[in-house]
Amino acid sequence: MIPKTLEEIITPSLIIDYDILMDNISKMVNFVKENHINIRPHFKTHKCIDIAKLQVKYGAIGITCATIDEAEILCKNGIKNILIANEIVDEGKIRRLINIVKKDNNVIVTVDNEQNLRKLSCFAKRYNKCINVVVEVDIGLNRCGREAGYDTLKFVKEVLRHKNIKFKGLLGYEGHTVFIENRKERVKECLKSLEKIISTKSLLEKNGIYSEIVSTGGTGTYDITGGYSGITEIQPGSYVFMDVKYKRVIKDFKNSLFVYTTVIDKKSDYCIIDAGYKAYSTEFGIPELIGKKAKIIKIYEEHSKVKNLDSKFKLGEKLLLLPTHCCTTVNLHNKFYVVQNDKLKHIWKICRERI
Amino acid sequence: MIPKTLEEIITPSLIIDYDILMDNISKMVNFVKENHINIRPHFKTHKCIDIAKLQVKYGAIGITCATIDEAEILCKNGIKNILIANEIVDEGKIRRLINIVKKDNNVIVTVDNEQNLRKLSCFAKRYNKCINVVVEVDIGLNRCGREAGYDTLKFVKEVLRHKNIKFKGLLGYEGHTVFIENRKERVKECLKSLEKIISTKSLLEKNGIYSEIVSTGGTGTYDITGGYSGITEIQPGSYVFMDVKYKRVIKDFKNSLFVYTTVIDKKSDYCIIDAGYKAYSTEFGIPELIGKKAKIIKIYEEHSKVKNLDSKFKLGEKLLLLPTHCCTTVNLHNKFYVVQNDKLKHIWKICRERI
Repeated sequence: MIPKTLEEIITPSLIIDYDILMDNISKMVNFVKENHINIRPHFKTHKCIDIAKLQVKYGAIGITCATIDEAEILCKNGIKNILIANEIVDEGKIRRLINIVKKDNNVIVTVDNEQNLRKLSCFAKRYNKCINVVVEVDIGLNRCGREAGYDTLKFVKEVLRHKNIKFKGLLGYEGHTVFIENRKERVKECLKSLEKIISTKSLLEKNGIYSEIVSTGGTGTYDITGGYSGITEIQPGSYVFMDVKYKRVIKDFKNSLFVYTTVIDKKSDYCIIDAGYKAYSTEFGIPELIGKKAKIIKIYEEHSKVKNLDSKFKLGEKLLLLPTHCCTTVNLHNKFYVVQNDKLKHIWKICRERI
Repeated sequence: MIPKTLEEIITPSLIIDYDILMDNISKMVNFVKENHINIRPHFKTHKCIDIAKLQVKYGAIGITCATIDEAEILCKNGIKNILIANEIVDEGKIRRLINIVKKDNNVIVTVDNEQNLRKLSCFAKRYNKCINVVVEVDIGLNRCGREAGYDTLKFVKEVLRHKNIKFKGLLGYEGHTVFIENRKERVKECLKSLEKIISTKSLLEKNGIYSEIVSTGGTGTYDITGGYSGITEIQPGSYVFMDVKYKRVIKDFKNSLFVYTTVIDKKSDYCIIDAGYKAYSTEFGIPELIGKKAKIIKIYEEHSKVKNLDSKFKLGEKLLLLPTHCCTTVNLHNKFYVVQNDKLKHIWKICRERI
């Protein structure tokens, strides 16, 4: 039976408030238009083709993604201008990348290592294709990427030696700054990061190398990176949904994603709901209950224990939780129930499978 | 391309060592045979029909599960004698339960609340079916369940008044004791729990009520509950796989489940692997690297940062991680690669979808 109303939707499940989602997409569209910046939103947050298509419809130049599986799903569904913001190292995956290139020769992959570059080049040659790359610069996250400045210049020169590899520009991610709650501090740290990638871009220019793309920026820094001279595009993901963690940082977008759950047991001072570790993630903290003076005090795989503060609960009552991290919560579900005015409007698939 | 060897399997993925899995299943079979106890292993750990069938083939009387989705998948795949060790409260789900009853009238559901009982009874009557129930007793976990003793007796008497409800016995879960590392302490706390359910069983008998089933026991307490007079069956799940957390408690079973990952970046004092929050769970701690003097020091969605202690890493090198919690790690993947002597033997589906 397909549910028609919010009340009929089974739990545990994910609910999207359609109007808030569209409002978030629209606010970001207005921002990028006003700032003459491109946006290539990150797929990893929603893993949903319907949302990706809405983002493209409202002006995104393409979609950023994290894995070869995500890139394949995007390509299969006709999304163009995919940027894989990650190194693809495994030979099996490089073969899959070539298959994507065959269908969409605008796909771009990230590279930061000579050995990986040679392998990409070798496969591109073998299949007589050209692979577009952006070079990742470590702008302070201290994860992947070349050192800003001469180390990147040296590597880009190496990239340019490979005929079947096309250098498109630079990619950085200031992920260490996106959650800094104090805006002044966040701006300061983010600018330090941006200075690294832009000075590297300038160094390349002085050496006659043009960067068509300079991509940075998450939801926590979209308005800093998006207004910074030299950055050509931003790649935020979470702004469509928001969550407890991001809501502390960014007020421009509203929470549109909720975990829906049922009270399955009721005791004198607590109740048990049918959502636990298998329905929401906890690495950023414990979800908040919407509209109830109560809190989750213990989590199990399929249950949470909710302490009544001054809320009363009924057996079978349905509750909305606000997740603390949208990306890893979405990854636990296989569909979104999209609701408008308490009526079910869409059921959208979440493409979380790995090939 | 279907991989043939461990080396060819794409990452991040889940690997099962087939021989260790079978050895774990076999050890548990021997235990239950020697102790003349039934086993109805928990599906929530592996969510895999192939493993459930192996468990049944080697002597399990049925399968325990946590959700109506799991019960449906089991029923659809011909598994008989399913025990849903959880309260099914929502009307939509009770309708789905009735559909399972139509195909397998041995299915049993857990109940602990009058309102829920009346609803189950009402639906059973409407569809002219009989629903088998076990009554949950809270034996110390302090989650769902009636209080041991008179409170349970009172509720069981209520259950017996409903003609379309068949009382099968009692269910308890000593989940608060399964991870106590000191065995003496674990035995002591577990026995306190068992005493609660067995004394309740005796109280029911004194009132002329026979419990065909008394089901308790997780992997951490299987050998305590499995040898305890009056307990008719145990319901452990994790023993097939084990993990870092359980390995500290129980030495009888070996680790058969691993997260497989690739080194995708290499720096002077760390490397980056392609497994993060979306490939393994962390609520019980951070996975261990197999055969390497190195440790995970930072986790992202699709990456982990691994600090070299005295290990050297190669770009593209594949590593095995030992998850800290098997159940919630399995839930992040859609298949198991089952390996024997480094050769791929099977690919088994993980049924993690929700209906």
